[in-house]
Amino acid sequence: MIKELIEAGDFAEARRALGDMNPVDVAGELEKTEHADAVRVFRMLPKDTAAEVFAYLDSDAQQGIIEKIKDHEINGIVEEMFLDDAVDFIEEMPASVVKRVLANLPADKRDIINQFLKYPENSAGSIMTIEYISLKERLTVREAFDKIRGEGIDSETIYTCYVTDSERRLLGDVSVRTLLLAQPDARVSDIMNTNVVFAVTTDDREKLAGEFRKYGLLAMPVADNENRIVGIVTVDDIMTVQEEEATEDFELMAALSPSDDPYLKTSVIAMTKNRLPWLMLLMLSATFTGAIISGFEASLLALPALAAFIPMLMDTGGNAGSQSSTLIIRGMALDEVAPSDVLRVLWKELRVSALCGVALAVVNFARIFIMNRDVMLAATVSISLLLTVVLSKTVGCLLPLGAKKLKLDPAVMASPVITTIVDAGALLLFFAIAKALIGV
Amino acid sequence: MIKELIEAGDFAEARRALGDMNPVDVAGELEKTEHADAVRVFRMLPKDTAAEVFAYLDSDAQQGIIEKIKDHEINGIVEEMFLDDAVDFIEEMPASVVKRVLANLPADKRDIINQFLKYPENSAGSIMTIEYISLKERLTVREAFDKIRGEGIDSETIYTCYVTDSERRLLGDVSVRTLLLAQPDARVSDIMNTNVVFAVTTDDREKLAGEFRKYGLLAMPVADNENRIVGIVTVDDIMTVQEEEATEDFELMAALSPSDDPYLKTSVIAMTKNRLPWLMLLMLSATFTGAIISGFEASLLALPALAAFIPMLMDTGGNAGSQSSTLIIRGMALDEVAPSDVLRVLWKELRVSALCGVALAVVNFARIFIMNRDVMLAATVSISLLLTVVLSKTVGCLLPLGAKKLKLDPAVMASPVITTIVDAGALLLFFAIAKALIGV
Repeated sequence: MIKELIEAGDFAEARRALGDMNPVDVAGELEKTEHADAVRVFRMLPKDTAAEVFAYLDSDAQQGIIEKIKDHEINGIVEEMFLDDAVDFIEEMPASVVKRVLANLPADKRDIINQFLKYPENSAGSIMTIEYISLKERLTVREAFDKIRGEGIDSETIYTCYVTDSERRLLGDVSVRTLLLAQPDARVSDIMNTNVVFAVTTDDREKLAGEFRKYGLLAMPVADNENRIVGIVTVDDIMTVQEEEATEDFELMAALSPSDDPYLKTSVIAMTKNRLPWLMLLMLSATFTGAIISGFEASLLALPALAAFIPMLMDTGGNAGSQSSTLIIRGMALDEVAPSDVLRVLWKELRVSALCGVALAVVNFARIFIMNRDVMLAATVSISLLLTVVLSKTVGCLLPLGAKKLKLDPAVMASPVITTIVDAGALLLFFAIAKALIGV
Repeated sequence: MIKELIEAGDFAEARRALGDMNPVDVAGELEKTEHADAVRVFRMLPKDTAAEVFAYLDSDAQQGIIEKIKDHEINGIVEEMFLDDAVDFIEEMPASVVKRVLANLPADKRDIINQFLKYPENSAGSIMTIEYISLKERLTVREAFDKIRGEGIDSETIYTCYVTDSERRLLGDVSVRTLLLAQPDARVSDIMNTNVVFAVTTDDREKLAGEFRKYGLLAMPVADNENRIVGIVTVDDIMTVQEEEATEDFELMAALSPSDDPYLKTSVIAMTKNRLPWLMLLMLSATFTGAIISGFEASLLALPALAAFIPMLMDTGGNAGSQSSTLIIRGMALDEVAPSDVLRVLWKELRVSALCGVALAVVNFARIFIMNRDVMLAATVSISLLLTVVLSKTVGCLLPLGAKKLKLDPAVMASPVITTIVDAGALLLFFAIAKALIGV
C-alpha cells in the first residue's frame, strides 16, 4: 500500500499511512520497496520510529539504506537502537559498511559494540542487550517508579527491574507488578525476589530458551564471571532463538549444513554448498553397502528373487531407525531425555521394536507366501525384517545418545546417517539368513 | 532435596525450604516424590502458591494429588488457578476425576470451563485465559492504575491492558509502560494504541505464534465472532505452542504419529501405535519398488554388478529429496515460503540439483572407472545418479507445496514418503539407462 502511494508520488498520504502502522509492518513495506524509494520513505519517519523500523529490516534492506544515507544519519539510527539490535545489524554487514558505521559512533558506544561482537556465537552474551533498569535496594517503591519513569523510554523492558549493589552484583529482581501492588513507602529490598534465574555470558542460548519456557520468564539477567550483571535477554529474542534452534535441528537431521537465511533469499551456490558435502559423504558410505551385495553375488545369481526384497528391507530399516533417533534427538533438545537414561531408552526401544518388527514380519510373511507360495523365502525375508527393525531402532536410539555424551550435536545422528549404517546391517542379516534357511 | 527432608521426617525444614523455592521447582520436586508424601508437602503450601504449583505439575502428579485430597480442597485449587491452566488440567484427567472436579465448582465457573473445553484443539480459544485487565476509554491514567492495583493480583498479565466499550468490543490497548510514562490526568483514550494485533477464537495457534514472533508481543487479545474480547493469550503459553508445533513436525517428518507425552513417560503400547501404521504403510509401498527389480531380473542376471549400485542410488535419492522437502516444510512453517512460490522454488531446486547431481556423478564415475575399468557401467550409474538427484529434489519440493495447497500438513511429505517414491523412480531410470547404454 505504501509502495503504491510512493509510486503514485503521493508522499503526504504515505507519511500519514506510515504514522498509523506498526513499525514491524513499516519494515515489511520498506523491504518490498526499491532501495531509492525506501530511503525516501525511511526519511519520513520520526527519529525514534526510524531506529525501530531499521532494526526490523532484513540485512539487504538495512544495507540498501545505510549506503544511501549520510554519516550523521547513520549515527542517529545506531544511537537510538537497542544494543542487541545494533550488534545484530553490524554482524550482518560487509566489512566496508561496518567500518563506516563504527567510525561514526562516539568512542564509548563503539567500544561496547566491539565488546559485544566478541561474545561467542549462540552464547547468552551474543543475544543480550544493556538497556535494563537497575535499582538500588535502599530505594522506596515511589523512588523506584521515579527511576522507571526516567529511564523507561530507553529500556528494552521495564517490567522486570534488577536490584544491584554498588559493584553491579545482582541482589534480586522486582517486577513492576510487585511494585504496583506494594505500598509507596516500602523498600525495594523488602519486596524483591532474591531467587533469580540468571545466566552467564558464555551460557548456550538454547539453555536459556529452556529456562524461559520452564519458568515462564519475560526477561533474564546475564552476569559476567565476577557475578556482575552485564545485560538482559528478553523473551522476544528467545522466541527467535527457539525457532532458529529448531530450524537448525531440522536441517542437520536432513543432512544439511544449517543456514539462517530464508529459503527464497539463499543463493543457488550457497544452497549447493550446504547440501553437496553431506550428499557426497553419504554417497561414498553407501558404496560400502553396495560392496556387501557384490560379496553375495553368488546368492543373487542362485536366487534372483532375493533382490526384489532389498528396497523394502532398506527402507523399513531406515524408517524404523529414524523414528527412534528423531524421538531421542527431540527429547534431548527439550531436556526430557539425557544420555544417562540410556538403559531405560534401550529397554523401551527393544520392546517397541519387537512389537513393530513382529507385526511387520507377519504381514510380510503372509504377503510373500500368498504371492510366491515359498515358505522358506517368506521366512527368510520376514526374519530379516524383524531383526532389521530391532537393529535399526537400537542404532537409532544409541547413536544420538552417544553423540550427546561426546558433546557432539545429536541432530547429526538422524535419518541419513542411521539409514546408511542400517542398510549395511540389513543386507548382511538378509544374506546370512538366506544362506542358513535356503542354502544360497 | 525436599524429598530427602520428607524421607527424614523433617517437615519443618521442608516447609522452610519450600518457601524459598520457585513454584516451578516445587512442582519438579513434587513430581519426584511418592504420591502420599507429595500430598503432605502440597498441603504445606500457602493457598495461592498451591494453585500455582499445581498448575505446573504433570498430569500424573496432578491426578495423584486430586485423588487424595478432599472436595473442598479441590475447589480451592481450581478457583485459584488461571482459567487456561484449569482447562489444561481438566483436559488431561480421566472422566471420573473430571466429574468430581466439576461437581465441586460453583455453577458459573463450571459453565465457563465447559465452554472453554469446547474450543477446537490447537485453536486460539483452546490456549487463551480470561484473567486480563480491561479499561474503559474514559478513565484517566490515575484511575487506570487504581483498577490495575485492584485486579492485578488475579490477572495473568497486567502489562498490556485492553480498552473496551460497553459491549466488550476492543477499542485499543495500552501498556503499563505507556501508562507509567503518561500524565496521571491523561485519558486512556488519548494514549491508547488503536492498531492492535488480535486473534479470533478459531484461529490456528501456530498462526498466533508467528505473530508473537513477528511483532515481539507479550500478550494478544482474542475476540469472538462478534468482535467482543473473550480472553487473552500470553507469551509463555506461545513459547510452549512453538515448541509443541516444532515437535509435531519433527515427528510427522519421521513417519510418527505426533504425541504430546515425553519419551520416557510414553508406554510401549502407545509408542508402537504411533509408529507401526506408518512403518506398515511404507513397507507395503516399498514392495512396489521391489516389483520393479523383479521386472528387470533378466538385466540383473546378465550383469549382476548392477545390483551393487542399488543402495547408493536409493540412499542418495532419498537424502537429496529429504534435503529439499525439509527446507520447504520448515520454510512454510515459518511463513517464508508459500505454495504460490512454486515456480521460484522449482527453478531454484532444478539448478541446485543440477550442480549437486553433476558433482556427485563425476566423483562416482571416477570411482567406478578406477575400480571396475568399465566406462559404460560408470556412465550408466553416473547418469542415473544425476537424474535421480534432479528427480528427488523436484519431488522433494513439489510434494510439500502441493500438500499445503490441499490444506494437508506438509510435514507428512518428508523423508519417508519421498524416499519411497524416489526409490521407484531411481530404479526405473537405472534399468532404462542400463538397457540403453549397455544393452542388458
